[in-house]
Formats: sequence, structure tokens, C-alpha cells
Amino acid sequence: MILQRLLGDRIDGGSLTLVLPDGQRSSVGTGAPEIVARIHDKGALLALLRNPRLAFGELYMEGRLTLDQGSLINLLSLVIGANRFEDGGHKGRLKKQLGFIKSLLPRRNDATAARRNVAHHYDLDERLYRLFLDPDLQYSCAYFHDTARGLAGAQADKKAHIAAKLDLRPGQRVLDIGCGWGGMALTLNRLAGVEVLGVTLSEEQLRVARQRAEEAGVADQVRFELVDYRALAGRFDRIVSVGMFEHVGAAHYGEFFAKCRELLTDDGVMLLHTIGKYGKAGKPDPFTDKWIFPGYHLPSLSQMMAASEEVRLIATDVETLRLHYAYTLRHWLANCHAHRAEIVALYDERFFRMWEYYLAAGAVAFENGAMNNFQVQYVRDRRALPITRDYMVEAEQRYRAMLAG
Amino acid sequence: MILQRLLGDRIDGGSLTLVLPDGQRSSVGTGAPEIVARIHDKGALLALLRNPRLAFGELYMEGRLTLDQGSLINLLSLVIGANRFEDGGHKGRLKKQLGFIKSLLPRRNDATAARRNVAHHYDLDERLYRLFLDPDLQYSCAYFHDTARGLAGAQADKKAHIAAKLDLRPGQRVLDIGCGWGGMALTLNRLAGVEVLGVTLSEEQLRVARQRAEEAGVADQVRFELVDYRALAGRFDRIVSVGMFEHVGAAHYGEFFAKCRELLTDDGVMLLHTIGKYGKAGKPDPFTDKWIFPGYHLPSLSQMMAASEEVRLIATDVETLRLHYAYTLRHWLANCHAHRAEIVALYDERFFRMWEYYLAAGAVAFENGAMNNFQVQYVRDRRALPITRDYMVEAEQRYRAMLAG
Repeated sequence: MILQRLLGDRIDGGSLTLVLPDGQRSSVGTGAPEIVARIHDKGALLALLRNPRLAFGELYMEGRLTLDQGSLINLLSLVIGANRFEDGGHKGRLKKQLGFIKSLLPRRNDATAARRNVAHHYDLDERLYRLFLDPDLQYSCAYFHDTARGLAGAQADKKAHIAAKLDLRPGQRVLDIGCGWGGMALTLNRLAGVEVLGVTLSEEQLRVARQRAEEAGVADQVRFELVDYRALAGRFDRIVSVGMFEHVGAAHYGEFFAKCRELLTDDGVMLLHTIGKYGKAGKPDPFTDKWIFPGYHLPSLSQMMAASEEVRLIATDVETLRLHYAYTLRHWLANCHAHRAEIVALYDERFFRMWEYYLAAGAVAFENGAMNNFQVQYVRDRRALPITRDYMVEAEQRYRAMLAG
Repeated sequence: MILQRLLGDRIDGGSLTLVLPDGQRSSVGTGAPEIVARIHDKGALLALLRNPRLAFGELYMEGRLTLDQGSLINLLSLVIGANRFEDGGHKGRLKKQLGFIKSLLPRRNDATAARRNVAHHYDLDERLYRLFLDPDLQYSCAYFHDTARGLAGAQADKKAHIAAKLDLRPGQRVLDIGCGWGGMALTLNRLAGVEVLGVTLSEEQLRVARQRAEEAGVADQVRFELVDYRALAGRFDRIVSVGMFEHVGAAHYGEFFAKCRELLTDDGVMLLHTIGKYGKAGKPDPFTDKWIFPGYHLPSLSQMMAASEEVRLIATDVETLRLHYAYTLRHWLANCHAHRAEIVALYDERFFRMWEYYLAAGAVAFENGAMNNFQVQYVRDRRALPITRDYMVEAEQRYRAMLAG
């Protein structure tokens, strides 16, 4: 019964059995994968009915919803697959069906818990990231030009893809907003002889990035600073920002684009790489907002364009990476599973399950939910770039070969 | 003095002398091109001060503003070049400076004249279009992959560019909304063995398109109908629409995208090619709206995205063609000049000047104004296309060779 409420009358490609606290079993669907999920207490059942999008992840994390058979990602695929964005998502049916239940239940305020638990995503131990990311520590959507090249290859190809869109020349000054552990900045320098300033707000990332620049002997060309991009002055020939815009928040889009325009030279080029949404940007996923990325916001293309048009940034090229992040997340998830013992040793079982849920839910959201990854190329002046995309194709092949060789 | 009001204190790259009705001369700028424009009567001067964007074209058309020296397009380039979109356009300075003058002058209502004069752009004599378009009668932005290939080559390359983005397979059903004289439909059939239905609202275009399909021996595969796309039923694997969206009007964007989604198969692909604006879509150019394309509206990307997101069409790829339409219009303008006598014989001197102004003003608007040409690729399902753009690059090279050979 609860299953019908969540999934409707039928699901495609698999079956799901729910074992309730009193031992009662309820099933939908047929065939593989066969998933058996167990709900351990009545409170869990109520929470699931009240706020399924949040409770699902929390109950899994807390071990109050476990799997007797099958994998988490297949379970999530069944749920999201029954509510595909392409078919209108969960807005229609789920909202209607759950609305009346929700209205009967008391509300909790979890704000305190939210702040306490994970406000510091990027300050997590570097060892954690080393356990599931590629060796270059690219913590953003890879580009699977050739799936056979695996995660590390796809992350290299992503850097080549982005570098090609930046139309780089030796000696140019490049700003990397949200530089992570420095992999993109170091790669742009290596590929095109540009000088890069990478900025981050994480001391941990700064330390690692600086150390890597030292080790590569390019600390004079690739610098890193612990600074908010809004505090920067000067101008840059190129700006690249990968996986940072998600944290800007819709209320600050205008400020973001105005500052980027100000930091860009008249003939400058910017490449913005961000998770986005296909449809109208709605509320953030409650689990992700509470446990993983507090305050995150995923833009629709119309939102990004409205904000950037306002400051006369010209969007010259938009590519919607649709399934690449799903592939990326499935790699990360597999790496986490392979290093489960180490991750549990670093943190605990509960953390592992939270992390697992975050990655698995992300993968299925890119597969059937509203999520994608936009790459938007901006200029201030329409003449800043060649008139066709040929330069991208040529540079990308060259860069890809340099990184593969 | 009037010049300073229109252009500010300085202009770049050229000089402009204005000869007023009383013989008084006023100049700005230095160097080539040297342009000398003459205003023949005091009423013209007043009209220019009252509503420069409309009056400029009308006075030129009526022969009340003529050139003693220099070309129209260079004159327009000076004016627009002093008010580049990149520098904020004419909104700021011009608006302020002309506002007080405008407020002192009486207003005319030109609505009757507007309707009388050019409601029937596409019903103009086919012979006119043959005099300035390429042999395939492509009346939209070309793609100058190689400028040495001239207009006809660039129009062929445009068709290859669009065909590649449609990811065509033999036997697919393609709908061409606003098919013009049939060139795109015939080319898609030739390149990829697809069946095409082209729809137009112009009887003249329909006649020519059908005749061409007959002559090519493909009338069974490439059909043309005189029908509003909103009246169509059935579903198509691919939809292409080139240079038609400009006439839809912002109030009807929702209806347009909803109908396109309905006409597209679940795994369908659509390619929309339309003139657009870099910044926020504002009022239409008054001369173009009155004399050339009554009721036209140029969308910003944010407008298009907001309308298409509403019906869950997924924008997978956006390319902003920036200078291609300027090149195209300069070719068309040169062709008009080369065939001036024939065009004047078909219509009259006044028509020629109107047409000349429309093309020249268009060219400079693409060079320094707010205009561009968007190509937006849409799908209903994220899995409808390969995950990288490689298929586009491969198909385009193949198609380009087929059309060049």
C-alpha cells in the first residue's frame, strides 16, 4: 500500500518488496533486480510517509531502512524510474497522493541538526576523497568521451574538454574560481602554458593544491589563494569555474555574474561548469540540503541566462551533459564500496551509509531525475572567439592526446 | 550638434559630416571612411530628433536623407559602432539625451501606414529573392565555416551544420516548420534519406518548393503543405525550424514549444534556428516592425529557455552564431547593389532603398548591436542523443563534403 503510494501501480524493470516492522510484506513489479527493503520501526514508516524525499536517505543512513536483498542504487533507480523527469517527475502524482498524509502529521524543525552534522563538506579528511575520486582529485562531472578509459581517463578528458572551450594562449592569466585540490589549474598550465590563480575557501584544499604546484615545479605559474572570489581585483583573460556555482545560491546569481564580468578582460572567455536542472529550478532535495550541501541551489538554464543577460555576458555555447555525471557517480560509488572498510575506519558506519546514499541518489537523479551538468561558455565581446566551433574540436583532440600520452 | 546628440563626442574609425537643409555642415570623427549625409528638409530633421531609430530608415527610404559620399552600411556602422551592445548599447546615453527633445514634440500615429505598406514580406515576387539570395534560396543565416566559399558555400555549410545536429537516420520522418522555398527539406532528404514534410503559409513558397521536389524526383519523399504548424497532427522523429520563430511572438512561445513537444516522438530531436538577442529582449526595432516584419519578436536565450523548460523540452546544445548573419546580410546587400536596376524595375527606387536599409541595418545590428542567431537543439528524452558531440562533428564533415562535391 505504501509502495503503491510511492511508486504507483507498476514499476519498470524490477521488483521491490517492502518488509514492514510487523513482518508484513508488500510487493510491486516483477523480474530482476529483485530488491527487498526492510523498515525497522513504526516511526520510520511515519517519517517515510510524511517526507519521503528526506526520510528515505535519513532512514537508510540511520540503519532503520536496510536492504535484505539488492543494492541501494537499484532501489533508488526503481523509485526515480517510476517518476522520470521526462514523464513529469514526481510533482504530479506523488505530490497529490502524499499531500493529505503530510497535512495530518506534525512538523519537526531540523535546522539545528542540519547545521551540526555536515556544514563542512570540503573540510572532510583528504584521505576520504583519495579513496573514491580519481588520482587528480577531480570532484566534479567527468566527460566520458570513451567509457573504456575509466574514471581517471574521463576526468582527463573532462579537463581537455574544458580547456578546449577556453581557447587558451600561452601566457594568458586564468582565474579558477573554486579550484578544489588544484587539478584543473595545474592541467591548464601544463596544456597551454597559461598562468593560473586558483581560489578556494578550504584550507585543506589550499594546502594540497600548493603542495602539488611545488612538486610540479610550477609554483611561480600556478598560484593558489584562500580567498572569496568576490574579494578579487584585477582582470583575467580567462575564467574557469567547475562545480562551484552550485553553492552560489539563486539570490546571488546576479552578483556572481557581475563580478565575473568585472574580472574578465574585454576579450576574455569564461567557462562555467555546474550541475543544473532540466526543468524549472525547484526546491533543493531535502536530504542533500540537510546532510551534504547545506544551502546548495541547482539552476535551470533560464535562471542562469536571465542573470547573465542582465550584466551583458554573452552565452556563446551551452552544452548539457546529461548522463556523464551519472557515470561519474557510479564510479565514485563503486570506489566507495571497494574501500568501505577504510571509510568506516575513518568515520563510522553511519557516515558510510550517508555518503553511499548521497552518491547513489545523485546517480539516479542524473539518470531519470531532473539533474544534469551545464557547461556554459561566456564572453564579454562577440568577437572574443572564432566564429565556428572548429577551434574547440582541434584543441580538444590535441589536449586529450597530451593528457593520455 | 545633432551629431553629438546621436553619437556622443567621438566616433571610432571614420568621420561623418551632416549637411542640414540650410546648408550648414556639422562633423564628427576623423579618417576613413568619410561619410557625408544630407538631410533635405526641416521636417526630416525634426523626425530624426523625435524618433531616430524609425526616422533614419524612413527618411533614407523616402530620399529625404541621402549620401553625398560614402555608403549606407558604413554610416550605420558609425552610428551603431558608437552604441555597441558590449558597451551598454544606446539605452543609456541616447535615451537620456533624446528624451527631453522627444517630450517637446507632437506624436504621429503611423499605424495605418504600417499595415498598408508591408504586411506581405514573403509574398514579394520570387524574382526579387532570386536576385539577392543564393541559388538554393536560403533566406536565413548562413554558416561561414570557410568564408572563401562565398554565400552559396556558406548556405550549403549551414544546411550541413543543421543536419548534423539533427542526428538523422534513413527513413525518419522530419517536419520542417517554415520551410521557405524547400531548400532545407530537399537537402535533408538528399543527405540522409529522410522523409520530410515542409509547411509554409506562403502560396508562392509552396508552389516553388513543390516544383523543386518534382524536378528532383523526390515528391514522394519530400512533401510540402500550406498549413499552420499548429494544425498538424501525428508525430515526427525530427523537427527543424529555421528562421520562423522570429514571427511567433513572445506571447505564443509557450504554445509553440508545447506543440513542438507534442509533434515530436518520445526519442525525437528538434533543431531551432532563430535570430535572437544577446541581452534582455526589448522592443522591436521600429523601422523593421513597421516596414519589414510587422509583429516580429526576437527572443533572448532566457525567454526561450523559460518557455521550453515549462513544457519539459530539454535544451541539449545551444550555439550562438554571432557574426555569421552579418556576413550573410553583407552578401545579400552586395547582391542587391549588383542587381539594383532589376530590383528598381520590379518595384521602384523607394522599395530598393527600403530593402537596402533593412539589409544594411541588419548587418550592423549583428556586428555591434544586440542581434545574433541561436541554434538550439531540443529533445524530450535525455537519452535521445549520444552523450558527446562527436556525432555532430563526424556527420557535419560528411554532409559538408556531400554538398560541396
